[in-house]
Amino acid sequence: MGHPFEPFMREAIALAEQGRWHAAPNPTVGAVLVKDGDIVARGYHTACGQPHAEVECLRDAATQGVDPSQCSLVVTLEPCNHYGKTPPCSKAVLDAGIRHVVIGLLDPNPKAKGGAEFLRENGVLVDSGVLEQECRDLVTDFLTWVETPLPYTILKLASTLDGKIATRNGNSRWISGPESRARVHELRRNVGAVIVGGTTFRKDNPQLSCRIEGVEKQPLAVIITSQLPNVPEAYKLLTERPEQTIFWTSEESAATDAAKGLRDKGCTVMPLPVMEGDTLGGRDIGYGLRWLRNEHKCLYTLCEGGGRLALAMLELGLAQEFQLHMAPKIMADAKAPGLFDGRAPATMEDVLGLRMIATEKSGDDIIITLRRRED
Amino acid sequence: MGHPFEPFMREAIALAEQGRWHAAPNPTVGAVLVKDGDIVARGYHTACGQPHAEVECLRDAATQGVDPSQCSLVVTLEPCNHYGKTPPCSKAVLDAGIRHVVIGLLDPNPKAKGGAEFLRENGVLVDSGVLEQECRDLVTDFLTWVETPLPYTILKLASTLDGKIATRNGNSRWISGPESRARVHELRRNVGAVIVGGTTFRKDNPQLSCRIEGVEKQPLAVIITSQLPNVPEAYKLLTERPEQTIFWTSEESAATDAAKGLRDKGCTVMPLPVMEGDTLGGRDIGYGLRWLRNEHKCLYTLCEGGGRLALAMLELGLAQEFQLHMAPKIMADAKAPGLFDGRAPATMEDVLGLRMIATEKSGDDIIITLRRRED
Repeated sequence: MGHPFEPFMREAIALAEQGRWHAAPNPTVGAVLVKDGDIVARGYHTACGQPHAEVECLRDAATQGVDPSQCSLVVTLEPCNHYGKTPPCSKAVLDAGIRHVVIGLLDPNPKAKGGAEFLRENGVLVDSGVLEQECRDLVTDFLTWVETPLPYTILKLASTLDGKIATRNGNSRWISGPESRARVHELRRNVGAVIVGGTTFRKDNPQLSCRIEGVEKQPLAVIITSQLPNVPEAYKLLTERPEQTIFWTSEESAATDAAKGLRDKGCTVMPLPVMEGDTLGGRDIGYGLRWLRNEHKCLYTLCEGGGRLALAMLELGLAQEFQLHMAPKIMADAKAPGLFDGRAPATMEDVLGLRMIATEKSGDDIIITLRRRED
Repeated sequence: MGHPFEPFMREAIALAEQGRWHAAPNPTVGAVLVKDGDIVARGYHTACGQPHAEVECLRDAATQGVDPSQCSLVVTLEPCNHYGKTPPCSKAVLDAGIRHVVIGLLDPNPKAKGGAEFLRENGVLVDSGVLEQECRDLVTDFLTWVETPLPYTILKLASTLDGKIATRNGNSRWISGPESRARVHELRRNVGAVIVGGTTFRKDNPQLSCRIEGVEKQPLAVIITSQLPNVPEAYKLLTERPEQTIFWTSEESAATDAAKGLRDKGCTVMPLPVMEGDTLGGRDIGYGLRWLRNEHKCLYTLCEGGGRLALAMLELGLAQEFQLHMAPKIMADAKAPGLFDGRAPATMEDVLGLRMIATEKSGDDIIITLRRRED
């Protein structure tokens, strides 16, 4: 049996999700006021600089003529206890006369925490840890920004039911349906950079752009490859938006004529150092990701494969979220390329285990969202 | 916008599901009474010979002191209009004074249909076709029995996220988690026969039995193979329950010494005719399935692979349901065996398209249920 307020916490989580992208670099937070078993007011953090979820919820209560002092407040994240862009929520909650607060996740941000303690000290009954894992998954982006120098990276791949990403001769239009492809453009609208491997770049000749009308800013396009293109004219990215195109490559490649030609066109060609401890000379993708966050203020990046890069991102813990867009189709061809390659586990104990956090219909497809077990 | 009674129909569908297996050979049906936007009574067809869903629902209303004449009746399948093991539901509904009936699927059974017409003729307002596809999917087993001589066959396979069913050296214990494996035993408890291909039989040496304590009857075990085993002692099925073991093979194999040895042990060895029009000499699995229904009264059968048999079952339309048990694991090994093999589609238009009808969490796994597009 879970906590009796779990259904209300689920509602608060759903509200919080509405602030995704816009709340950054703040966490997405949702809050509801509950009276006699009914939700009577709602709020979420709509955008950075706007009021926090608790304050939005109290405003909604005022609009609706609800007296908060008769309600329980259910909030996905511990009310903040510091003066940032807004005054502390813990005080606003206390001032509203609320006597019972249910918290999902205690704030891991040392600057903001202490709200629960403050409320308890002032006689408020505080429950915490209700749907804690779900509330933590809600703010993994925020935790990534607070705890690491990395952007939050979403790995997105599309496959058939049997894990194939193209026919044996490379045909992949289209694996997933129009609704799922629209979701990809929604992702590209909200991330600072889209990252692909060299094989995907050469085979698919992608634009990696957001094709939603009226979009203001296109994501940077990052290609990780040791083989820089010699004929830039052959690639859409290099003819359409070379200034937004970045190559991550080896020191040797970065010093070639091909690299110079790309730079002359306006591209960035950047060597990645060899990853520490990697005897095969693998490049340090984390270095590149940190650079994207530092130099280009990328809070979110999107990796769209191919399979070897995707596996590396997961294995290295560089992708915090894996979205698998799975179409109800069967390829049934062992020679068709699969989602991932590069490992050779002998037993089932040796496979890479993930954690499923959500599944969602998307037209005829299903979108499965996963994280690493340890995240 | 759907019909305003869709949420109630979903509840009726969920109720109907509770009668799965026991209702056979009747359809699973659920019904609810709705008054002022609330469900006030519920019923479903619990087992063949027991009252139909509408009657169960009216009984529940009586128990609860609800007056049905003030309610709408929402039922997944058209009320029957004939005297079978029970009197016609259409009359019971009319006699209860109900003035509004919402039907999911009109009864495709010519013997039973006419309920909607009877009700309309008697002045009842009847809506039909509400969540019709979902209500049809609910009774695909029943439709299979009425419209074809086949049993209803469920194809169940387990894979990783990337479509792998074992490591490259054949290790498959365990792909799926304990909850999903328990679901397989629940399936085996309810089907008349479990069917596997020869490679699965030889590699996995399976028992194909239901390991739920107190189970009364084990399913028949059917192996489809052209190579009958020469050393029966090596196989669990042949030492533990040879009388329940059936081999479907070619005429030639059925006349060998190996076949005689198996028959001496108590097994059934049965030749399947060559499938009409199959120039490669493929065996007519449909013939065997019809035989299971006729000779062994199998209404349900379960196919557990391998991949070539599974693909044939789907392509030939012999499996009406495909349950994919998918674990959140990544094999990332192109040399590991995949879910299906045997096709070589050149474009995405050539792949086998299915229709997803449900997804469900099962421990750490997800169970995806699909049908053929045309079913």
